[in-house]
Amino acid sequence: MSNKPYKGFEPKWLLTPAPAGSYRSIFRWGDPEFFKYPKESLYKMMKETFQMTDEDFRDYTDDIGFDQVALPNHPSRIAPEHLEALKRIVGEEFVTTGDYERLSVAYGCTGYDLLRLRHKQIDSLPDVVVYPDTTEQVEELVLYASQHKLPLYVYGGGSSVTRGVEPTKGGISLDMRKRFNKILSFNEVDQTITVQAGLSGPMLEEALQDAPHRFGAKRQYTCGHFPQSFEYSSVGGWVVTRGAGQNSTYYGTIADIVLSQKYATPIGRIVTPHYPREATGPDLNQIMMGSEGTFGVLTEVTLKVFRWQPENRKRFSYMFRDWETAMAAAREMMQCECGYSSVFRLSDPEETHLMLKLYNVDETPLAPLLDKLGYKDMERCMFLGFTDGEKGFSQNVARNIHRIARRFGAMPMTGYVTRSWEKGRFNDPYLRDTLMDFSVITDTLECSVNWSNMAQVHRDVRAVCHALPNTIVTTHMSHCYPQGANLYFIFITRMNDAAEFKRYHTTILDAIQRSGAAISHHHGIGKMFAPWLEGYIGEKEYGVFRALKDYFDPDYTMNPGGTIGLDLKPEEKKRLNERKDYR
Amino acid sequence: MSNKPYKGFEPKWLLTPAPAGSYRSIFRWGDPEFFKYPKESLYKMMKETFQMTDEDFRDYTDDIGFDQVALPNHPSRIAPEHLEALKRIVGEEFVTTGDYERLSVAYGCTGYDLLRLRHKQIDSLPDVVVYPDTTEQVEELVLYASQHKLPLYVYGGGSSVTRGVEPTKGGISLDMRKRFNKILSFNEVDQTITVQAGLSGPMLEEALQDAPHRFGAKRQYTCGHFPQSFEYSSVGGWVVTRGAGQNSTYYGTIADIVLSQKYATPIGRIVTPHYPREATGPDLNQIMMGSEGTFGVLTEVTLKVFRWQPENRKRFSYMFRDWETAMAAAREMMQCECGYSSVFRLSDPEETHLMLKLYNVDETPLAPLLDKLGYKDMERCMFLGFTDGEKGFSQNVARNIHRIARRFGAMPMTGYVTRSWEKGRFNDPYLRDTLMDFSVITDTLECSVNWSNMAQVHRDVRAVCHALPNTIVTTHMSHCYPQGANLYFIFITRMNDAAEFKRYHTTILDAIQRSGAAISHHHGIGKMFAPWLEGYIGEKEYGVFRALKDYFDPDYTMNPGGTIGLDLKPEEKKRLNERKDYR
Repeated sequence: MSNKPYKGFEPKWLLTPAPAGSYRSIFRWGDPEFFKYPKESLYKMMKETFQMTDEDFRDYTDDIGFDQVALPNHPSRIAPEHLEALKRIVGEEFVTTGDYERLSVAYGCTGYDLLRLRHKQIDSLPDVVVYPDTTEQVEELVLYASQHKLPLYVYGGGSSVTRGVEPTKGGISLDMRKRFNKILSFNEVDQTITVQAGLSGPMLEEALQDAPHRFGAKRQYTCGHFPQSFEYSSVGGWVVTRGAGQNSTYYGTIADIVLSQKYATPIGRIVTPHYPREATGPDLNQIMMGSEGTFGVLTEVTLKVFRWQPENRKRFSYMFRDWETAMAAAREMMQCECGYSSVFRLSDPEETHLMLKLYNVDETPLAPLLDKLGYKDMERCMFLGFTDGEKGFSQNVARNIHRIARRFGAMPMTGYVTRSWEKGRFNDPYLRDTLMDFSVITDTLECSVNWSNMAQVHRDVRAVCHALPNTIVTTHMSHCYPQGANLYFIFITRMNDAAEFKRYHTTILDAIQRSGAAISHHHGIGKMFAPWLEGYIGEKEYGVFRALKDYFDPDYTMNPGGTIGLDLKPEEKKRLNERKDYR
Repeated sequence: MSNKPYKGFEPKWLLTPAPAGSYRSIFRWGDPEFFKYPKESLYKMMKETFQMTDEDFRDYTDDIGFDQVALPNHPSRIAPEHLEALKRIVGEEFVTTGDYERLSVAYGCTGYDLLRLRHKQIDSLPDVVVYPDTTEQVEELVLYASQHKLPLYVYGGGSSVTRGVEPTKGGISLDMRKRFNKILSFNEVDQTITVQAGLSGPMLEEALQDAPHRFGAKRQYTCGHFPQSFEYSSVGGWVVTRGAGQNSTYYGTIADIVLSQKYATPIGRIVTPHYPREATGPDLNQIMMGSEGTFGVLTEVTLKVFRWQPENRKRFSYMFRDWETAMAAAREMMQCECGYSSVFRLSDPEETHLMLKLYNVDETPLAPLLDKLGYKDMERCMFLGFTDGEKGFSQNVARNIHRIARRFGAMPMTGYVTRSWEKGRFNDPYLRDTLMDFSVITDTLECSVNWSNMAQVHRDVRAVCHALPNTIVTTHMSHCYPQGANLYFIFITRMNDAAEFKRYHTTILDAIQRSGAAISHHHGIGKMFAPWLEGYIGEKEYGVFRALKDYFDPDYTMNPGGTIGLDLKPEEKKRLNERKDYR
């Protein structure tokens, strides 16, 4: 995680930018000039856990993908008349069948995607990539695709971890990054901004923090939505998957932040209401969110915005004695009605163990002190975060968190821990790329639970993970509510085969589904989790999704190939848990 | 509003409880022993505004409904085999075709309903009233009704102001008040309660405040949902209409408070998820809420509950110079991120004028002081409320409200004003009954707006109201958000004819629809506002509701006769406003 040289042996971390046009430039995360590799303590831990030696890090396991993308065996199959029609809609130069452009929108960022790309395993490719500019163009494209039964996919930020963007049926992929990323209006009276769905997180946040110059606003604003994928995520992706940012405990998930949406569907334009609350039948905003491109293409979004007041932020971190006590304290913080903190992150013992290594805390005088005071390794739990909002509000939240943490026997840690977390919060994906060069793969799965089933879900899922070979699994909650929270599992293993990884991943998803948790708190369903969805939601309840699909997209041309399970065959579905009454 | 005798002439206010079995016992609000009549100042104002004299109050305009209900011309048409089947499901003694029982579930509480009941105008009656006990019974009843194409209606609290409960097609009405009102479970860890949908507001709140005794809980709780109709409203009614209580600015509307729902639909049981947030496709909770009985019958609801901490409550009231300044201050309070107050109610100049009379403020030294300081009658605006939540949170909200009110030039008023409002908050419907005996009718309409269109909606709707003869129209906002608020119009007029009143009411609804506001913030749509719904939502967007209806209730037996417009003919619909892009 630093550039400090290792003592003795130096692994062959790749520090050369991927060449333009290369495979690596597609599967590698983000900024080509930025690199991240493990600190020595993590390196040591990996070697121990995965029975690896320095030898394994002398060279890359495989080809690292520096060669140019060339797909002679995967030509575009689009008919010339369709190609011409698409060009008429968006302009000649904004339609391409180039190999690189097609591959660059073919996969997302789940471990299975990255392994397939590294091995040049081409399971899916669009036949043509289109770069729309306006809402009207997207509407024409959707109508054209629907009329000619061409599969239509959308690529926003590309950071899907659910195979949400994968064009499994070929056809058209709309790459929104190039042009469909404009801010359409800003309304300071209502504190809202309306944008095209392809706008990236950083472009949105930059504009909002620069609102006095950009929009002549009286104040600076923030979008309040910062997923780990922030830097390479799009507003549209946030919305259609029901994403949540790391500050969601205060700002809400995207489902709370969206005010209004506009979709291009096969039956035409759909505009949802733009009032904060209303009693006018089922909530259209909440019907369209979560559709993941299967009802149509999200074109425009109006988001609520928030005042940017970092001067009021209070950072905190505490160490709890054990997971049970820490969960009880977190619950009290969420239920006492003192207001919610913005980042609110509680790590289980295994994650705490890893974090103390990552943040070098185990090399400071704090480590023996913790031991001495009875905060034992592999029992103790790290809790950290910071507050946002108006000054008095922010202070009151921090004061109550301190009060409750102390009441539950926690030890205040330094602000150093929180700052260390902040430094890494958006760049862990870089570390992932570095490790994969040596067959060490990191991935995440997450779910939503009530407080009353949290201990059981945590226990059950971890038990399954630890029965798997060579697995580190760390868990935290990071999106919290009075009635429950998410549980986020990060697992690290030594594996290099895509099919093997898929089986491994499936085993953990099965465990989540069996535990009774909601199978996703904020990653969404995509094509990867789709087999579990009907089993989780219930058969008649799932029928609602199909009724909506039949209404919007009767020919099933929108994000086809299993997305949220709508065109899965019965035998492709899993039903591992009977829905029980909540009590 | 008091029992203080009038100076001189004493109008013939009715102070005798309505006899059991009488018409009046049906159309009159609430507790038979409780009466409310106008204070002399309001009485005087009514006479002036409506060109009435004491003579008009010497005797009732009409029959006051003390006679026994008897409907010889409206026999039940239910077939004997259906009657037998219903009795087999719920038990012999819980099925009735009695005239009184049928009429008592035939109407809600909108002005049009009360005028029709006073004039014994029987437009709608169920053929049979059934009193279910369990979820399984309701499920059997729904299946039976659906299989035999019998219209099925539900009567919860009966306080619908949208003709939501009216059995316009006859058939079966489920009267939930008698038995379908049980608490099923309480979960203190998750802070939730699960109840049958017929439970009344006061029964729920009493149980929660008594949680230590009732459930062995560690604390007292509150439901946080207090609509004006609280005392005669049901949890199910709150949920299916998307209601909001007077404390919604802090606690949220019912759409925020519901965690999970169970419905008996013609296609079977539907259970919605019970996690605080998830990313598993469209939000089933928000799809079922707002269906108003047209997808099926709501049987069970799990609500979030809140800690009961009245000791932390801070009351406040302020007088602003004018509506524009007051709106700007309210917006700042909602956007500054200091936390939200629980009751947050801002009256426009006409309502402020009336309130000062009602609360006797115009007889105190405060009245000349206000004038002297330039807070002019018919310009000044009253703002009042109170905070809830943890002590520091509550204090911080009150402190910021004070700071902002002062910054916008408001004068602090006494806690007396807030307490006066609190005294009357649930019992204004009693006053309404008293006035109707003399042909003075009060009713309300409400809508949802963004801050940026609030001034225009307020101006447009009031202009239309004031063009109507003999109309007092007062307006407030009482459910506020960073992006907007509701506008609530109370109108008082002299009128006694149901058809005339319906035309009058329609004129105002037309004005709301033309203004571009959402046509309901929390009353719902029912059968009364249904003609406007598709025009407001948009044709393709409204098609979503029909797709859902077709899925759940393909034979249209659930709350038929226009509810949320699903079985209206095209010519019965109004389209008064083209949907514009929100910017």
